[in-house]
Formats: sequence, C-alpha cells, structure tokens
Amino acid sequence: MSPWQVSRRRLFGLAGAGAALAGAGAATGYGLSAAAGPGTGVIAFRGERQAGIVTPAQDRMHFVALDLTGTDRGAVGDLLRRWTLAAERMTAGLETADGDAVPANRYVAPADTGEALGLSAASLTLTFGVGPALFDKLGITDRRPAPLAELPRFQGDRLDPARSGGDLCIQACADDPQVAVHAVRNLVREGFGVTEVRWSQLGFGRTASTSTAQATPRNLFGFKDGTNNLKAEEPELLDEHVWVGAEGPDWLRGGTYLVARRIRMHIETWDRSNLDEQQQIIGRDKGEGAPLTGTGEFDPADLSATGPDGPVIADDSHVRLASAQENGGVRLLRRGYNFVDGSDGRGHLDAGLFFVAFVRDPQSRFVPMQRTLARSDALSEYLEHTGSAVFAVPPGLADGDDHWGRALLA
Amino acid sequence: MSPWQVSRRRLFGLAGAGAALAGAGAATGYGLSAAAGPGTGVIAFRGERQAGIVTPAQDRMHFVALDLTGTDRGAVGDLLRRWTLAAERMTAGLETADGDAVPANRYVAPADTGEALGLSAASLTLTFGVGPALFDKLGITDRRPAPLAELPRFQGDRLDPARSGGDLCIQACADDPQVAVHAVRNLVREGFGVTEVRWSQLGFGRTASTSTAQATPRNLFGFKDGTNNLKAEEPELLDEHVWVGAEGPDWLRGGTYLVARRIRMHIETWDRSNLDEQQQIIGRDKGEGAPLTGTGEFDPADLSATGPDGPVIADDSHVRLASAQENGGVRLLRRGYNFVDGSDGRGHLDAGLFFVAFVRDPQSRFVPMQRTLARSDALSEYLEHTGSAVFAVPPGLADGDDHWGRALLA
Repeated sequence: MSPWQVSRRRLFGLAGAGAALAGAGAATGYGLSAAAGPGTGVIAFRGERQAGIVTPAQDRMHFVALDLTGTDRGAVGDLLRRWTLAAERMTAGLETADGDAVPANRYVAPADTGEALGLSAASLTLTFGVGPALFDKLGITDRRPAPLAELPRFQGDRLDPARSGGDLCIQACADDPQVAVHAVRNLVREGFGVTEVRWSQLGFGRTASTSTAQATPRNLFGFKDGTNNLKAEEPELLDEHVWVGAEGPDWLRGGTYLVARRIRMHIETWDRSNLDEQQQIIGRDKGEGAPLTGTGEFDPADLSATGPDGPVIADDSHVRLASAQENGGVRLLRRGYNFVDGSDGRGHLDAGLFFVAFVRDPQSRFVPMQRTLARSDALSEYLEHTGSAVFAVPPGLADGDDHWGRALLA
Repeated sequence: MSPWQVSRRRLFGLAGAGAALAGAGAATGYGLSAAAGPGTGVIAFRGERQAGIVTPAQDRMHFVALDLTGTDRGAVGDLLRRWTLAAERMTAGLETADGDAVPANRYVAPADTGEALGLSAASLTLTFGVGPALFDKLGITDRRPAPLAELPRFQGDRLDPARSGGDLCIQACADDPQVAVHAVRNLVREGFGVTEVRWSQLGFGRTASTSTAQATPRNLFGFKDGTNNLKAEEPELLDEHVWVGAEGPDWLRGGTYLVARRIRMHIETWDRSNLDEQQQIIGRDKGEGAPLTGTGEFDPADLSATGPDGPVIADDSHVRLASAQENGGVRLLRRGYNFVDGSDGRGHLDAGLFFVAFVRDPQSRFVPMQRTLARSDALSEYLEHTGSAVFAVPPGLADGDDHWGRALLA
C-alpha cells in the first residue's frame, strides 16, 4: 500500500484525522505533483487551482447542480465553510467528521453516511462552481462577470429544464464511483435547508485525457475522443485558454468556467451507419484514431489536403469544425464522461456523453464553436443536447483558507 | 500482464481470434476455477452453470430486459445463436466478430461498435434469462415452469411498468463499466428486428460478495450488505437453495431463477435518523457489521437474546426478518448493485439498490420472505420498490453448444 492510499478503515478510531491531513498536506502544492496521479490515492485539495480540472482524469464522475432555497448570504457562507471542511477531509480519504461511524453520542445522526468506510480516497477531487442565477439571489448582482450567463439556444437543442442550470455545482471525480457518490451525497446532505439538488449526473467512464501520461479513451461512438485536448503539461496553453486572467473579477482570477452539456447519442442509428461513413463524419479512422490525412493518432490533421472527391477531411466533419484552425485558435480543456441512464421507453438506451469543458470565457470561446457544430457538423444528426449549464469555478484554496468562494461572498 | 489479460488491442489484426478463444478455453471448466476470479481478466464462458452467478461479484453491472417484437421462434433461435457467439467472444476480450474495426469491406456497418477497443476482458460475464411472457408469444406455453410467473404485488410497491418485466434478460457484469455497457449494447444491436430494450439499469458498485475471498461491501445506507450471503465455496448450500433440481423442466435443470427489484432508497430521510435507530432497524452495528448480539461481522445473530427492553435484535429488524430462521430455512444468493440515476426532480437523488438474487424457486422461496419484509421490516419505511422482474436462467453451455436456451426452443 502506498503511503497515499489512506484507508478510511485504517484511520478509524485513531486520533488520526489530524495526522492524516498533515500527511495529505505533504502532497499539497501548486501545479501537478508527481504524487498526484490517478491510482495514487490522494489528490491534493489545496493549491493555486482547484483539483479536478488539470488533474489526470479519473475513471468515474458524479456531478451535481444545486439551487439555493433562500437568499441569506450568511447561511450560504456558513455552508461553504462546512463544505470546504468536509471536502478536504473526504479527498484525504477521511470521513466528513471525526469518529462519525460510532460517535460518542449514539443518539445523534452520524456525521458521515458511512458507505465509503473501508475504501481509499480513490483519487477523489471535488470541484466547486457558481451559476449565473446565484448573484441576484444573494444580492451581489454587480459581482457577476458578463461571461457567466446561461448559454443561448443552439440549433437542435432539446434541453430539459430539469437537467439544466443550477446556482451551484460540485463535480466529484474518483477512480471508485462509490467514493464519488458518497462525496456528493454527504455534501448534498450538509446543504439541507440551504440548497437542494437540481440535477445530478453519473458518468461511468472518462472520455478525455488531461495528461500526456494517459491514453486517449473512447466515447460511445467507438472513436477515441479528445486526442487534441489540452494537457496538464502545457501550462502556457492553459494560461491562454483555460485560466481567467486580468480580464476577470478578483474573486475569479486564476479560476475558470465550466460548461456542461448532457449530449444524448443516438447510438442505435450510428451503429447502422457504415464504417466509411462514420470515419468521414469524424474525420479520423476508428481503429487508431489518426486523422484521415495521417497514420498516427497524434499526427496533425491536414485540413487543406484534397483527394479526387474534394477535401480528405470533409467540410462537415467533426474534426474540422471543432479544430482550433476553424475556431480562431480557440481550444478547450475537455473532461467529459460516458453515461447510460437506462432506456428511453421507446426501445433504445438513454446513453451518451456528459460533456464537461473548462474554458476561459464560455461566451466568446465556447458559444461560437458550438453554434458552428450545431449548425454544420455531420455528427449532429446523431446527437441531441438534453441538458446545459455554465458555472464559474474560483481558483484553488491557499493553506489556511477554510471557505470555498470566500472572495466572492466577502 | 497475466496471460488472461487479453487485450482487444493486442489481438487486433491477428488471425488471433481462434487462438485467443482456445486460450480462454484453457480456463473453461465446471465449478470455480482458481484462474477465474475478478481482476484476472477472463472468466470462462462455458461450464455447468452460466457465469455471473457464483462468479465472484465484479465491481460494475449493466442489466438489460428486452421484449420480443414478434412471435417467430426460428428468428429467436437464430438470434440466440448469434448472441452466444458474440457473448463468448466478448467475454474472452475479443470484438464481436473478426477484424471489425477495420473490416475488409469498409462500406458495411462495423460488426462491433468499437468503444471497448484496447480494454481487457475485465472479468466480463454475460448471464442470460427468459421471462414469463416469452412462452405464450412463442407458442410454447406448456414449457413454462410454474415458478416462472410475475411476482405478486407487495405492500408499498410503487412499480413502474417501464422498469419491470421483460421477455429476455442479459446481466453483464465486469470490473470496467465500459466493457459491461459495450457488451449489452452490442447484444441489443444484434437483436435489432427481433428484440427491443424494455428497460436497462446500470449498477456502479456491488452490494454483495459471492465468494469467501471477497470483503463484504456497503450499500447506500452505509451498512455492510450480504454478510450471510451464500458463497461459491458452499456447493451443497447452492444445490439446496439456488440450482433447480429434479423438480424443474429439463431445459432448466441445473439452472436457476433471477429475481430483480429496483429499490429506491430514501437516503435523505435515512441520513437524518440517528445511529442507534439505524442500527436497531438493521440489527447490526454500522462500523463492523456485527449483529447486535455479537462483536464480529460473521458472528451468528442470536435472535433469542433479550435485554432490559426486550429482544436485543428487534422484532422488526431487517436482520431478523430476512434471516433463514424466520423464513423456513430459505436462503438466497444475492448479487445486487448500488445505483444513482440522477435526481427525482424534487431535490433528492434517485439512488438505491438494484437487488438481484438467484434462487431455486422465486414463488415459494422469495415471495414469502418479501411479503414479510414489505409488511413488517422497519427498513421498509425508507424503501420504495420501483421495478420488478423474474427470469429463468438456464444452465451453462457445454463445449460445442452454440446456442443459449437451445433445449428450451428445440
């Protein structure tokens, strides 16, 4: 067992909470620590950025959007403090409070729900964001940056309001889904009386690599997804495309925006199309993931190459329309997950991609690209966007800061 | 890499399919092979029993119930043959057919959907069953054994017809959810024109151990679940409680029945109850999982022990009412999974237990126990049964048999 694979079980009943947090603190630091990859068990909670953005994408996700039930800024601040404490403990592989499974007073509700007892931290990260509607509710309308606005309707959107929006979000990612579900559930529970769940989404498999150390995974169309994703090892590109700079308000500088889109994929229709058609639509081959102008996955796509029938990479192909070249140089940090939410009552699986991207400005950098894709991408025929949300994600917590979003509410 | 961790990627483009199946065949055998545990990559597809019953429970599940779209017995037989071929290949870590990602003819739909390319077999098992309504549809009403009938309504049931029943089922279990989802999706696709999806359920974490080599996992109430479950290492008990004997029709002898119940758990209400109340309701302590009359998880519960306030293990506790002693000696092989299907639109997570049990006779062995639990179990207050189904699960395939359910349709 690596020193980072802190088992809740092993710490149980010890005065070990403090010791373990101190231990976890050794992995704390700015940027990507060598000890902070998936499988090592504990990802540092504190740092210049929130974890769960450039952290190598874990295998599973539970994402929750919550609404405020009132307008009391003090109550929200208190909750954010309690959340921060619980989040730091859980990401270190501890319960939400000391000695909770068998508290000294058996006649109070346990502080922790207990279903992650005995499990490791499983590389848990908890990433916190605020939605556009929160500002009016809390009487801080003037602090809302302009880019933090609900996305416009795109062609073909069939959004379900019950799967869209939200005043707050928490993204839990872990290599064990029970650990991610446990974390969301305990934070939801902590929020009782101040927040309530608006929607939540479980993702069973990552569809993006966010580190050069990770292989590119496949989405439910069977293609490698995110070959050209931004990576943790490219800090200059992250500064350019992901992190909010001097253009943003103080409370968000060094943070980012999170765009979430629940994209139903009509996999049954896709599965009846032939391989050549699939590859033309994507602009890459299915086996290797190489652009149709190359042979290796990471070969650059030659968008100007032509063959006897016109462009080798078709004008309406996904690779072309999503490329930086066709989008004024814009790039995203994608961190999405495959989902299956049962069936749709009409004989088909309700499956697809829960698209999550981190971007410096959703309005100027995501909206134009999505408008193009919705209108022109040959892939759109097989997709249906059923949920949408945008959140501002503050920077990380410095040592000693006990409060997600303190600078926003101050 | 162990020889069993056959990567689809590595076999790709080889004439390797045959060789790999021959390799997988080496693990074939009756009963539990030492090489056939989770994590070793490949579970033998053939044997006296279907895999996925006493196989050490894998971490993830995708379960699908399908309906026949017609009444043509020949078409169903053809499908079962194609399913068997595809299932055997997928459980060996191969695609559904040779060379599918880049077939010789690029202008046909790929035989395999491709999203599991590069992944191992991940201990995939595929377990096949038939529902009560199939028999009338195929004109073989006289072959339906009496125990294969929909379950009666139990007190408190709030069953959704869109999550209940089905003419056929396939349970896919694997240590990687992408592998389980891929398998179900490709079998569903193969069934196009003969079957359609009625419902499906993703389970993210096992709630049962089916081998003495596995630790007992926790359900979403935070308690260890299935401490007294039947285990693979107890063949006499399995013969007594799980496998259909001489009382069953030829086609089912050596097989079993599968009972599925989708149980929504009102975790927010549960989380507000105090620890003592929770432990009284279950009859065990939360940390260790010991019965309230003992100190170790596997200590037998002393149902006759009394204290100053009456029975130590309460009359309406779950452990008492589900015990073999209170149910005429009946025991089940449980193999359920935790689920989270988003939220319910009223601020709560739609989460719970997808209960799966294998039993020799659902009517005489499951129904009376469930009737008691529904009526008297203190836990019922926190539960809502939203789906229900029962299937007959034929025995395993012998070497050379190319057809799930051949004896049934012959």
